[in-house]
Amino acid sequence: MAARDGLARLSLFTKVLPEKITYTGLELSPHWIAKQTGVFANSLVAFRGPCNVATGEMVDLEDRFQELRIEAREMVHFLGEWFDGDLNLAIARQRLLIAGFGELLGALLPAGLCVWRKGNDLYVIGDGEPRKLSVSIVTATPVSTLFHFGVNIDASGAPVRAVGLGELGLDVDSLVAAAMKLWSEEWASMEKARCKVAAR
Amino acid sequence: MAARDGLARLSLFTKVLPEKITYTGLELSPHWIAKQTGVFANSLVAFRGPCNVATGEMVDLEDRFQELRIEAREMVHFLGEWFDGDLNLAIARQRLLIAGFGELLGALLPAGLCVWRKGNDLYVIGDGEPRKLSVSIVTATPVSTLFHFGVNIDASGAPVRAVGLGELGLDVDSLVAAAMKLWSEEWASMEKARCKVAAR
Amino acid sequence: MAARDGLARLSLFTKVLPEKITYTGLELSPHWIAKQTGVFANSLVAFRGPCNVATGEMVDLEDRFQELRIEAREMVHFLGEWFDGDLNLAIARQRLLIAGFGELLGALLPAGLCVWRKGNDLYVIGDGEPRKLSVSIVTATPVSTLFHFGVNIDASGAPVRAVGLGELGLDVDSLVAAAMKLWSEEWASMEKARCKVAAR
Amino acid sequence: MAARDGLARLSLFTKVLPEKITYTGLELSPHWIAKQTGVFANSLVAFRGPCNVATGEMVDLEDRFQELRIEAREMVHFLGEWFDGDLNLAIARQRLLIAGFGELLGALLPAGLCVWRKGNDLYVIGDGEPRKLSVSIVTATPVSTLFHFGVNIDASGAPVRAVGLGELGLDVDSLVAAAMKLWSEEWASMEKARCKVAAR
Amino acid sequence: MAARDGLARLSLFTKVLPEKITYTGLELSPHWIAKQTGVFANSLVAFRGPCNVATGEMVDLEDRFQELRIEAREMVHFLGEWFDGDLNLAIARQRLLIAGFGELLGALLPAGLCVWRKGNDLYVIGDGEPRKLSVSIVTATPVSTLFHFGVNIDASGAPVRAVGLGELGLDVDSLVAAAMKLWSEEWASMEKARCKVAAR
Amino acid sequence: MAARDGLARLSLFTKVLPEKITYTGLELSPHWIAKQTGVFANSLVAFRGPCNVATGEMVDLEDRFQELRIEAREMVHFLGEWFDGDLNLAIARQRLLIAGFGELLGALLPAGLCVWRKGNDLYVIGDGEPRKLSVSIVTATPVSTLFHFGVNIDASGAPVRAVGLGELGLDVDSLVAAAMKLWSEEWASMEKARCKVAAR
Repeated sequence: MAARDGLARLSLFTKVLPEKITYTGLELSPHWIAKQTGVFANSLVAFRGPCNVATGEMVDLEDRFQELRIEAREMVHFLGEWFDGDLNLAIARQRLLIAGFGELLGALLPAGLCVWRKGNDLYVIGDGEPRKLSVSIVTATPVSTLFHFGVNIDASGAPVRAVGLGELGLDVDSLVAAAMKLWSEEWASMEKARCKVAAR
Repeated sequence: MAARDGLARLSLFTKVLPEKITYTGLELSPHWIAKQTGVFANSLVAFRGPCNVATGEMVDLEDRFQELRIEAREMVHFLGEWFDGDLNLAIARQRLLIAGFGELLGALLPAGLCVWRKGNDLYVIGDGEPRKLSVSIVTATPVSTLFHFGVNIDASGAPVRAVGLGELGLDVDSLVAAAMKLWSEEWASMEKARCKVAAR
Repeated sequence: MAARDGLARLSLFTKVLPEKITYTGLELSPHWIAKQTGVFANSLVAFRGPCNVATGEMVDLEDRFQELRIEAREMVHFLGEWFDGDLNLAIARQRLLIAGFGELLGALLPAGLCVWRKGNDLYVIGDGEPRKLSVSIVTATPVSTLFHFGVNIDASGAPVRAVGLGELGLDVDSLVAAAMKLWSEEWASMEKARCKVAAR
Repeated sequence: MAARDGLARLSLFTKVLPEKITYTGLELSPHWIAKQTGVFANSLVAFRGPCNVATGEMVDLEDRFQELRIEAREMVHFLGEWFDGDLNLAIARQRLLIAGFGELLGALLPAGLCVWRKGNDLYVIGDGEPRKLSVSIVTATPVSTLFHFGVNIDASGAPVRAVGLGELGLDVDSLVAAAMKLWSEEWASMEKARCKVAAR
Repeated sequence: MAARDGLARLSLFTKVLPEKITYTGLELSPHWIAKQTGVFANSLVAFRGPCNVATGEMVDLEDRFQELRIEAREMVHFLGEWFDGDLNLAIARQRLLIAGFGELLGALLPAGLCVWRKGNDLYVIGDGEPRKLSVSIVTATPVSTLFHFGVNIDASGAPVRAVGLGELGLDVDSLVAAAMKLWSEEWASMEKARCKVAAR
Repeated sequence: MAARDGLARLSLFTKVLPEKITYTGLELSPHWIAKQTGVFANSLVAFRGPCNVATGEMVDLEDRFQELRIEAREMVHFLGEWFDGDLNLAIARQRLLIAGFGELLGALLPAGLCVWRKGNDLYVIGDGEPRKLSVSIVTATPVSTLFHFGVNIDASGAPVRAVGLGELGLDVDSLVAAAMKLWSEEWASMEKARCKVAAR
């Protein structure tokens, strides 16, 4: 039992980086996380900082072709690099992680507000037009897949109607800790699920 | 634009089967769905009927080794067969579909009740001990992956503390229709996401 | 039935681009097609224009190491980008598409002339030495595979003995339309075949 | 050069089995070929014999669900087992091999007759309604993919309008030898193509 | 650092089963190990017991077609089930594990004797004709790959010239413990290697 | 038998390059080998020359982040490019090839000295502290995997305690020839193993 639990706990390495880091899109590069952590493994890190992604750094080409940009005064950034699986798996994992974040958040929102997930975007609804809470992208490198999920803390500067965790009165650090724990457990339980089903 | 929408709409074939069918676990077989629908494609069908899975038909070996069984007087069964991707992808898809179902359900529950997803299980919480709402499994065949997600309508007979959609006062048919629509759109949007990101 | 047909028709997005475009080899880049069409999906487009590929842009390294180049005054260019499958699949698809084009062409040639396919090259034979009709290459990007198939309309400038559709008296537009239709149907029928066989 | 040619020549092991063998569908099993040849490698063998596949042995479930059967007094059977690649690759290879067979055949038919390939079926056309010349299927095992391509020699007993190589006045043995040579070369050239393209 | 070490230590679950178990070939089945250990993960277990594999249970078809059998009075059996990677990876892993075992063994043999590995077989040489020390096989299931490596303790009954660890005066338990440790570390270091190289 | 042997012999193209070449890390690039040999196939070449890899060319990011470098006055360099399989397979193959080299070397060392393999490094032990004999790395490109294994001949300049084949009194050319032969046979036998096991 201990062995199985131990396996589960470590199958996704997670770490909160203490320093403020501006997310410009360049951080979405192979081994950027390993350079910060010194750990070479499937990883998911979190850090706080502004978001300022120029059009030319947009990985989502639908957005780039439309010359969009991403900006916010402060976000909590979740950045992952995974060395197994392909882009299809990374996309499904991305949405599942975001759905999990939405589940956590939904239980914490003030009465009258709800979380609405549309694909890889989270919105807060309940008091008028939906307000966008997050941005996300997944892509592939020749050796890995990369994940970014940025959640507004202070949405100032965002080019769309948006909201941030600060404005919602939520404690960012405990939310981040809860998300990291939830995701680690989900990851481990998916790995176990892979190993326990009989073929048909 | 029309082309892209059309592509999205059809990338997962969905159908509600009108007849009552008892789910015994044998339905979780390659091409069982195609035999019902006459369509050979990534599919997801829904039908209503009792659930009665004997230990020997349990695909989850952790459950089978413990000689568990699954039983409920009536469930809505979602059954999928997907001809692309491996078991890891099927597991991530499974959980994402279930998270999406939970998102729909959460917006419909009476005040004071919430949905809680733990891996591939949904529970209803808010009035005492969590009550189990659903069962799910994913497995692989040599040509496909298979998905079952059974949601209690009438949980009578369940070997654990459980709840059903009937008891919760929910309209099953419209919930099923909403889930099928949500999932089709999620599936299509994941396929598009696959095609629109620049590699790093 | 309708659903299945619909699925088939849209599984490969095809479009004839109206403008003349010189093919230099740089068009064989990820998402170049999506930039033209606005559609993010497995795609195959056709356009007319000169062909002028310098040695340094040759993807076929056997040719590049020998410092070959490709040139023709006018070709019809078929360009594909496919987001599923690996390079081996892309190569088999390439040759099958070219075989299909040859099948169409063979039925249209003047008496006494035949099409001869050697790997991914088409030749016209029957009146002396074979004359080269086409060039083709397939390659991989980190997110997709890419396909180019250029068929001479006016072979002037080609560094080998060559022939063009113009000289053969063929109507290019209707041949392109027929090829696109054939390929879409072949693609769809392969996808269906994937889903309808029992494992052994 | 010698090394490369040598590699090409042997990448698909081919052999004509001398004995008459009735094809019942059971031959489409993993390692059946290896048992005949003693060679464990990607293989393609040919043999002559009746064809008699009962509904229950049909691997094509669309046909099995419609309770079709396959029958002919004599066919030449091509049977392949390939230990690399998945079912999608096997399907593309199947159609390419059949297209190649059609190309050979087209050059040999009496004036006024043509070959028409529709997916994995060959027909002879030119003198009224198309007559079916062949049947084919591809499937997967947990360790390989399997290929059957049966070409009528004497189509008697076929449940559809059909034709055979005998009736067409063709020499079966030399056609088989030519097909085996063509396919070996195509296979080898695809393997080389895999190794000589620069990524984009 | 601690995290990385922890990850490494647990990426392959290893266990020595205390009971004597006769290896008949049937143990080489999906989830047999999980049933013994209660752990669902990439696993490698060891146990002692006779070896008695009838022709019909031979997974190696070259051997089965020749109607060989495997027998020894006592072996130490290493049995693995791995839920990632395909049969090619499993074969490379098999040989690497066996090479590692040979490296350990070579350092322990009495003067004048050496280990010789030929593919997946170990022999002891140095005093006349090589004596076979081990048997091994790898195969695939629809959900995993399976590994058996049986090392003679008492080779009595073997159908070929053979030797056992007992006869060589080696302590089996400590050799097994050393092998399990070596393999766990090798496995972990391969997983880390996967995550630390820059693409070219 | 001849056919099978022939297949085996050619499945990995090997060649000793006669000229001296300094290994700087840039040689670890896609198709570098093909440019030297003119052969487009899974390949493994050997050549002699200095080793001088600057930090910026280090593919092993753990080493690069620590600003290590690799240097030796003369090495025999084995360089491979393989067009099948992923990075996990390449890593397992790398270690197996190195284990095989160690097996050869062990039989040739003077009395009192042994080879010790730790992951992908070989050491010579027996007379004090282990001395490092080799360096190795494996990486991926979008179309292939690449392998470098450099064995010191004259270890002068190495930044760690090291030893070379010269100092050990070994004949480099015959060792290289033996390694190439061993590896070719191992490769072929793994390919055959892939094709001869029954699934479970």
